[in-house]
Amino acid sequence: MSRLLLNCDIGESFGSWTMGLDAEVMPFIDCANIACGFHAGDPSIMRNTVKLALAHNVRIGAHPAYQDLAGFGRRSMAYSPQELQDLLHYQIGALEGICRAQGTRVSYVKPHGAMYNDMMANPAQLRAVIQAVAAYDASLPLMLMATRDNSAVQAIGDEYGLTLWFEAFADRAYDNAGRLVSRQLPGAVHHEADVIVQQALTIAAGKQLVASDGSALVLQANTLCVHGDNASSVAAVQRIREALNQQMPS
Amino acid sequence: MSRLLLNCDIGESFGSWTMGLDAEVMPFIDCANIACGFHAGDPSIMRNTVKLALAHNVRIGAHPAYQDLAGFGRRSMAYSPQELQDLLHYQIGALEGICRAQGTRVSYVKPHGAMYNDMMANPAQLRAVIQAVAAYDASLPLMLMATRDNSAVQAIGDEYGLTLWFEAFADRAYDNAGRLVSRQLPGAVHHEADVIVQQALTIAAGKQLVASDGSALVLQANTLCVHGDNASSVAAVQRIREALNQQMPS
Amino acid sequence: MSRLLLNCDIGESFGSWTMGLDAEVMPFIDCANIACGFHAGDPSIMRNTVKLALAHNVRIGAHPAYQDLAGFGRRSMAYSPQELQDLLHYQIGALEGICRAQGTRVSYVKPHGAMYNDMMANPAQLRAVIQAVAAYDASLPLMLMATRDNSAVQAIGDEYGLTLWFEAFADRAYDNAGRLVSRQLPGAVHHEADVIVQQALTIAAGKQLVASDGSALVLQANTLCVHGDNASSVAAVQRIREALNQQMPS
Amino acid sequence: MSRLLLNCDIGESFGSWTMGLDAEVMPFIDCANIACGFHAGDPSIMRNTVKLALAHNVRIGAHPAYQDLAGFGRRSMAYSPQELQDLLHYQIGALEGICRAQGTRVSYVKPHGAMYNDMMANPAQLRAVIQAVAAYDASLPLMLMATRDNSAVQAIGDEYGLTLWFEAFADRAYDNAGRLVSRQLPGAVHHEADVIVQQALTIAAGKQLVASDGSALVLQANTLCVHGDNASSVAAVQRIREALNQQMPS
Repeated sequence: MSRLLLNCDIGESFGSWTMGLDAEVMPFIDCANIACGFHAGDPSIMRNTVKLALAHNVRIGAHPAYQDLAGFGRRSMAYSPQELQDLLHYQIGALEGICRAQGTRVSYVKPHGAMYNDMMANPAQLRAVIQAVAAYDASLPLMLMATRDNSAVQAIGDEYGLTLWFEAFADRAYDNAGRLVSRQLPGAVHHEADVIVQQALTIAAGKQLVASDGSALVLQANTLCVHGDNASSVAAVQRIREALNQQMPS
Repeated sequence: MSRLLLNCDIGESFGSWTMGLDAEVMPFIDCANIACGFHAGDPSIMRNTVKLALAHNVRIGAHPAYQDLAGFGRRSMAYSPQELQDLLHYQIGALEGICRAQGTRVSYVKPHGAMYNDMMANPAQLRAVIQAVAAYDASLPLMLMATRDNSAVQAIGDEYGLTLWFEAFADRAYDNAGRLVSRQLPGAVHHEADVIVQQALTIAAGKQLVASDGSALVLQANTLCVHGDNASSVAAVQRIREALNQQMPS
Repeated sequence: MSRLLLNCDIGESFGSWTMGLDAEVMPFIDCANIACGFHAGDPSIMRNTVKLALAHNVRIGAHPAYQDLAGFGRRSMAYSPQELQDLLHYQIGALEGICRAQGTRVSYVKPHGAMYNDMMANPAQLRAVIQAVAAYDASLPLMLMATRDNSAVQAIGDEYGLTLWFEAFADRAYDNAGRLVSRQLPGAVHHEADVIVQQALTIAAGKQLVASDGSALVLQANTLCVHGDNASSVAAVQRIREALNQQMPS
Repeated sequence: MSRLLLNCDIGESFGSWTMGLDAEVMPFIDCANIACGFHAGDPSIMRNTVKLALAHNVRIGAHPAYQDLAGFGRRSMAYSPQELQDLLHYQIGALEGICRAQGTRVSYVKPHGAMYNDMMANPAQLRAVIQAVAAYDASLPLMLMATRDNSAVQAIGDEYGLTLWFEAFADRAYDNAGRLVSRQLPGAVHHEADVIVQQALTIAAGKQLVASDGSALVLQANTLCVHGDNASSVAAVQRIREALNQQMPS
């Protein structure tokens, strides 16, 4: 059993605006998904974020998005597959440029917000993302969402020889298909730290979760998405980190 | 005597707007200064432009700019040296990302518009640009302006081990210091193709130009800046290309 | 029978990029749909365009769009109804600000591109647009698309006391429902000037068109959308103008 | 003696990013300088801010800026006087559009950041700003900086029939010319609430301040610039408000 990596969206400040407790959460994570300037982040913030990740020996991932700063990349936009590939190459390259000047590099890719959701909902968009990463550097893993059955997604990754890292969530309820329960529904988000830590350990051990319909659900996940938004989410990340370290000493 | 390279700003369309006769001028140039999205260019236009340069075996240069799309990067903006370096790394990297997906790479850097002018007027900005390119990849030449005496500029380049490519203009009058005569003044811009071609040949041969005050001026130039804006400028580029080929068979 | 107004998208240049033959088409139109900076247009271009409209005594309309300069406002974006209203108030107001400094004002509103299409396809978006214009100034007409049956759309307009101006197209084929035939299909766009002028006259007279399935179609239209993109479309507008003038002397 | 108005920059959040304690400071101020989307603010934030100002019966001012979101409008940019006027008309109008939909209007104008500083340093820019406001609505006051001698600035305002509101600062040291002491110098910013309140009262009473060189300085000010950045600045505003109310019961 391989180690469950903790990934976190990082570097989502912009210009004079600050978002997230990047410095506080960085010590506890493995993978920093760094915004690339289209939904958040600007060149100077990207540099500072890359340096922070380097200081904590955290893997740097490109976190590209639709070009919608006012909407934080959360609004779906009708990009063609070709345009989507161009967006990805531009943003991954931009972060790589910042990394290169700091003596490091981009290690993986995780699309943001609506780009991520659209990719999981629309096979043509998923194929475009996979193709884009493979064309940029086929050795870069792509992070996307684990569901009950990853095989269809994996098959497209295999076509392009791309490594896929499936991610799961410790603070969200899952439905029968292994999709996240909508935030509109009661019980969609776990708020108790104990529940969150327990779900993280269950996922890490490859054991059964209970889906929203009561069925058993096993997620094949390589990584867990955690959050550095505020003090309580950072505290949860620290507890998950410590629990995972105990479960499987590195 | 080494060959005088012809460089041209390319890929300066944006979204649905077209600018420049890129396809027409590409066959005659050596170096394509490709806009990186901050003053012109968008990810899809950058891809098409990179493919066009590849098809004509033309060197690809990053043409970064201040972030001012409405002003086409021509308005001076008060960036700090550190911000300037971040802007450069972001934009060079972004173009490199597009190049990489097409199996090629960025070969040199030429700042655009106000960034170029400010760099030539302000040693702290020049140092920031040189430092930024060196930190990204010290093997990439930086294009900047040849004047009567390149030694002060060259000295900064030498500090960082960076190759500098000095550029001259065939269609502009020079003053005694080897600076371009302001466009506000009469005679600043040459319009006759014969005059332009002759000035190109004079520069290529390392011979004397006549400055605006009548003094002799020899420019040490590695490259000549040409323009693909319209049919007549493209025709001038073609004539310069043919004249240079005759002067020095490749 | 009231006069059929000719409306045309205008002011769609941006910064250093030019689009459309605004000066050439302005003499022949009644209504200029002026871009408001979100898909095209910038404050300086908006001023020049307002002055041009004033010089030709052409009504000035706000032509607001989704915030997507790179996509020219043609990509659908998932705005909420409230966000859509805010977008409209901002852009109508911005053009009004430019108008006011020139001693004139905004006379109507016509959404652009994907905002227009989404409004026609989605009643919640249509209601938001109608509500937004009514809240800004209920005396401003809103331009939207005439179909076989305008009554459902008209009913929403009536709820808010808003005047609706229905527009038709002289250069496009219609289907049985009075919707434009997709450009993907053969025969969707009329290219012959005679055909275009004839369709304009038929619409102006309130007579029957032949829909793509052969059925008769009468469009109740207040205005005809014409185009100033290039010399041939401007020539068509001139011919339509002259034909309408003959049909119904002003 | 007329009442000293308290003005505060407000609505400087953007998209998903929050800045300033707008709701906390609004009860204590007279004039809200609302960002217009070019350095901060977006249409939805502008609406919320306008509603908040309305709820507290606070005058709404347009707070236009250079187009530089990443730089928060703090970087000087080389706009021509005409471009500057266009920027102002666009932004004042945009806020007016939002206001109009809420049944209110823009009551004054105060340029932001580098636009403000450049206007105070460069008479051609100052004239352009004054001319722009006068062309939009000559009844709108323009806020600018009080110095030892306001007469030269006032003379330009008088040319265009524009009301000028001179503003002073309670938390900044002044030099002999009545300009703010640079933040780089020691003692430039007052941090003690007692000192700040005392300076506010002195300015309100039209009494003498002590400039940084020890000379006496009387500022003719109509308004005092206060800050809602954080809890301690809001507390200072509340104390200033209460002290002014005691000094001169409304």
